[in-house]
Amino acid sequence: MSSHFSRIGDTIVALATPQGVGAIAVIRLSGKEAIQITNRVFFGKNLEEQASHTIHFGTLRDGDRVIDEVLVSVFISPRSFTKENVVEISTHGSSYIINQVLRLLIRQGARPAEPGEFTQRAFLNGQFDLAQAEAVADLIHSDSEASHQAALHQMRGGFSQEIRELREKLIHFASMIELELDFTEEDVEFASRDDLRVLVEKLLRVVENLISSFDLGNVIKNGVPTVIAGKPNAGKSTLLNALLNEERAIVSDIAGTTRDSIEDEINIGGVMFRFIDTAGLRETTDTVEAMGVNRTREKMKSASLILYLFDLGDTDMVEINRDVNKLENIGVPFIKVANKLDKSNNQFISELKEKYPDTIFISAGKKENLDVLKEKVLELVNLDKFRTGNTVVTNIRHFDSLTRTRQSLLDVLTGLDEEVTNDFVAMDIRRSLHYLGEITGEITTDDLLANIFSKFCIGK
Amino acid sequence: MSSHFSRIGDTIVALATPQGVGAIAVIRLSGKEAIQITNRVFFGKNLEEQASHTIHFGTLRDGDRVIDEVLVSVFISPRSFTKENVVEISTHGSSYIINQVLRLLIRQGARPAEPGEFTQRAFLNGQFDLAQAEAVADLIHSDSEASHQAALHQMRGGFSQEIRELREKLIHFASMIELELDFTEEDVEFASRDDLRVLVEKLLRVVENLISSFDLGNVIKNGVPTVIAGKPNAGKSTLLNALLNEERAIVSDIAGTTRDSIEDEINIGGVMFRFIDTAGLRETTDTVEAMGVNRTREKMKSASLILYLFDLGDTDMVEINRDVNKLENIGVPFIKVANKLDKSNNQFISELKEKYPDTIFISAGKKENLDVLKEKVLELVNLDKFRTGNTVVTNIRHFDSLTRTRQSLLDVLTGLDEEVTNDFVAMDIRRSLHYLGEITGEITTDDLLANIFSKFCIGK
Repeated sequence: MSSHFSRIGDTIVALATPQGVGAIAVIRLSGKEAIQITNRVFFGKNLEEQASHTIHFGTLRDGDRVIDEVLVSVFISPRSFTKENVVEISTHGSSYIINQVLRLLIRQGARPAEPGEFTQRAFLNGQFDLAQAEAVADLIHSDSEASHQAALHQMRGGFSQEIRELREKLIHFASMIELELDFTEEDVEFASRDDLRVLVEKLLRVVENLISSFDLGNVIKNGVPTVIAGKPNAGKSTLLNALLNEERAIVSDIAGTTRDSIEDEINIGGVMFRFIDTAGLRETTDTVEAMGVNRTREKMKSASLILYLFDLGDTDMVEINRDVNKLENIGVPFIKVANKLDKSNNQFISELKEKYPDTIFISAGKKENLDVLKEKVLELVNLDKFRTGNTVVTNIRHFDSLTRTRQSLLDVLTGLDEEVTNDFVAMDIRRSLHYLGEITGEITTDDLLANIFSKFCIGK
Repeated sequence: MSSHFSRIGDTIVALATPQGVGAIAVIRLSGKEAIQITNRVFFGKNLEEQASHTIHFGTLRDGDRVIDEVLVSVFISPRSFTKENVVEISTHGSSYIINQVLRLLIRQGARPAEPGEFTQRAFLNGQFDLAQAEAVADLIHSDSEASHQAALHQMRGGFSQEIRELREKLIHFASMIELELDFTEEDVEFASRDDLRVLVEKLLRVVENLISSFDLGNVIKNGVPTVIAGKPNAGKSTLLNALLNEERAIVSDIAGTTRDSIEDEINIGGVMFRFIDTAGLRETTDTVEAMGVNRTREKMKSASLILYLFDLGDTDMVEINRDVNKLENIGVPFIKVANKLDKSNNQFISELKEKYPDTIFISAGKKENLDVLKEKVLELVNLDKFRTGNTVVTNIRHFDSLTRTRQSLLDVLTGLDEEVTNDFVAMDIRRSLHYLGEITGEITTDDLLANIFSKFCIGK
């Protein structure tokens, strides 16, 4: 990490708020000279004499020319986001002013920040570990209660704590083994092989639990891949729009806040569902029969949930039996959704309820019983693990490291089984430690850091 | 204004930074309860015990659920933008979090702010006058040095000061006249009619100066309407693109800042030029001959500047003479721009230089001599008045009020000429005072305020 620290001498600057016209914009500086650089163009007070966490009104000037009336917030090292001196300048939210202020500060010696450089500095200065730093970006991009809670849990160190505990146990384990190495001539056994096995198996279970949480984590972060399957006139678009409109109505009820909603992404009960366009989710040629087609079947298999939608007035029991059979073969959880409740006859409904008591009866057009459908959807996704505050792995990098950790731990077990010498066992343990360390950043490379932080936005 | 003051009891809240994903977002509250409301959902410190202009780290919580880690800035009345208690909450810049925080604060008793309501409160609480409040919006939307400086000058009270001085003189004048009214039986004359005339004439000159500055002000705010006229292959698009690209290159050289550039708006030397699409600025059918067509002639007449562009290799002196003659008849300042310098023969250039020494020779395609053209353009627009820091009227509402003030002052003069009784003269003076007062907001109506502030963005 030394080459990163060596860059830390300079002071970086960037716009921290989104582009566009707003009431205010915040420009942030971090570095040894942050306060001095700002002070040279700020008139009203001597910023170098101010206490940390205080706010000062004044003007920014380029020579005689006033650029703006601003509020300047001063954070003195180490009491700041990056643990360096930090200044936040709150200007009027005009792109012209933002541009002028950035130029002015750059002329005074600040350097335009790279993407994620503020968070990177926070990491390098020990404000938080790598998994927490990554969660900052996830938090900013979170768009549902579930993804938000997962990111916040991770940012606040919940995940890191579990990894740290694992590492500590492994380090203890490794030190026992390595102690033995020093005494190998005497054939001393500090660590009972049976005790070691019990410990490794225990750690393995924790790691495997974390790995298996990634399915849920991925779904939380990227949305639950969902397919609505059904005949052309079953009402698939109507259902999608009914769900979508309801969400939009909720979102837009606070003046001034809108969500850039993505077509076919729907927030249900705090979880994002991503509706996959199968051959014909939107097309009239789509039929459940089309499931025979390979491509459609593949898409359905990649989904986490299928809503099987049929028109009560236009489907008979034979057809439903056949479709249900096909869906069961696909092996993805599915919900039987009977649409156009108003157009049906009671006898068919009774028959259906008897045969498939878990059928959900709705009217997509009249928005009837959508709540019942949503409840069922959430039940199938099973967010219990997430709701109980357990750690959920959402980051594919962490998933990869955990998978490698598991392999190394399995190698340790094999080594113990095959009674290989301690130095080999120690090597496998060190390897597990390495992979776990990559997650929290105890072990990093410049490439790894560059790769992680380059995905951040500038200003973060 | 009483009905406005009566609404001021409540606490308003809004997002103050632009929509979209960014490192941070700022949510602002203003009102008596701003600090208490925030304190109910903030964990870390008791915000009610903090000094003004201090910043506090903690978490926002909805019951047990942590919504975000935030920085809260506290401003205690009257030391704030609105002169009320103000809280600014700096959250992570996710639309999900922003939405959650706004909902939380609204549930705690804050009300979503109307557009411009923060600035309106600042005005109603005497932070600044109406002309200054209007300048806040202009400042946010300023996109060039000229519009930025005009808005800043106005926001900092330069314009208001001039209006106030005018009003004070008129008030003095009015009080003299009205004093006479009380003594009318005795035929006392406190104000010499000749002195009054001199004073009114002096005020009239000031008002007329301000009115005439509106041409410049309008141009500064909305861009200088400019036409490039010339034959189809003179290189009009090439010139426009050359100017546009040069500007974009300048703008984009600071990472992370871009300007939403509008096609055909070009910033030259800090002034925005708005290129008007005449019949064929972009069309190949456009010729200077087309000036005969009424519509094109009208557009040219409405421009503040015409660039007459011709191809040196494809235009003879006869043609140029004829075009220059037509342009002189239109009466708008124009610049003769000889393009494709590289394709010409020296003899024609010498001839042209002798006949029209003010011709600018460029090569749009090779971007040669564009600087000379830009200098000439700026010279013709004549920004001396603006550069010397004089007040420039940029707001059409102010222009209207000043025009009405002028009429009232002229009526005063007529009254003095026709030796009407003092009560009529006093009435006209009161009318002038009324119109001047509308500018700074000494005289307002609810409708006027609603109209002005509804044009602001929410959060300002």
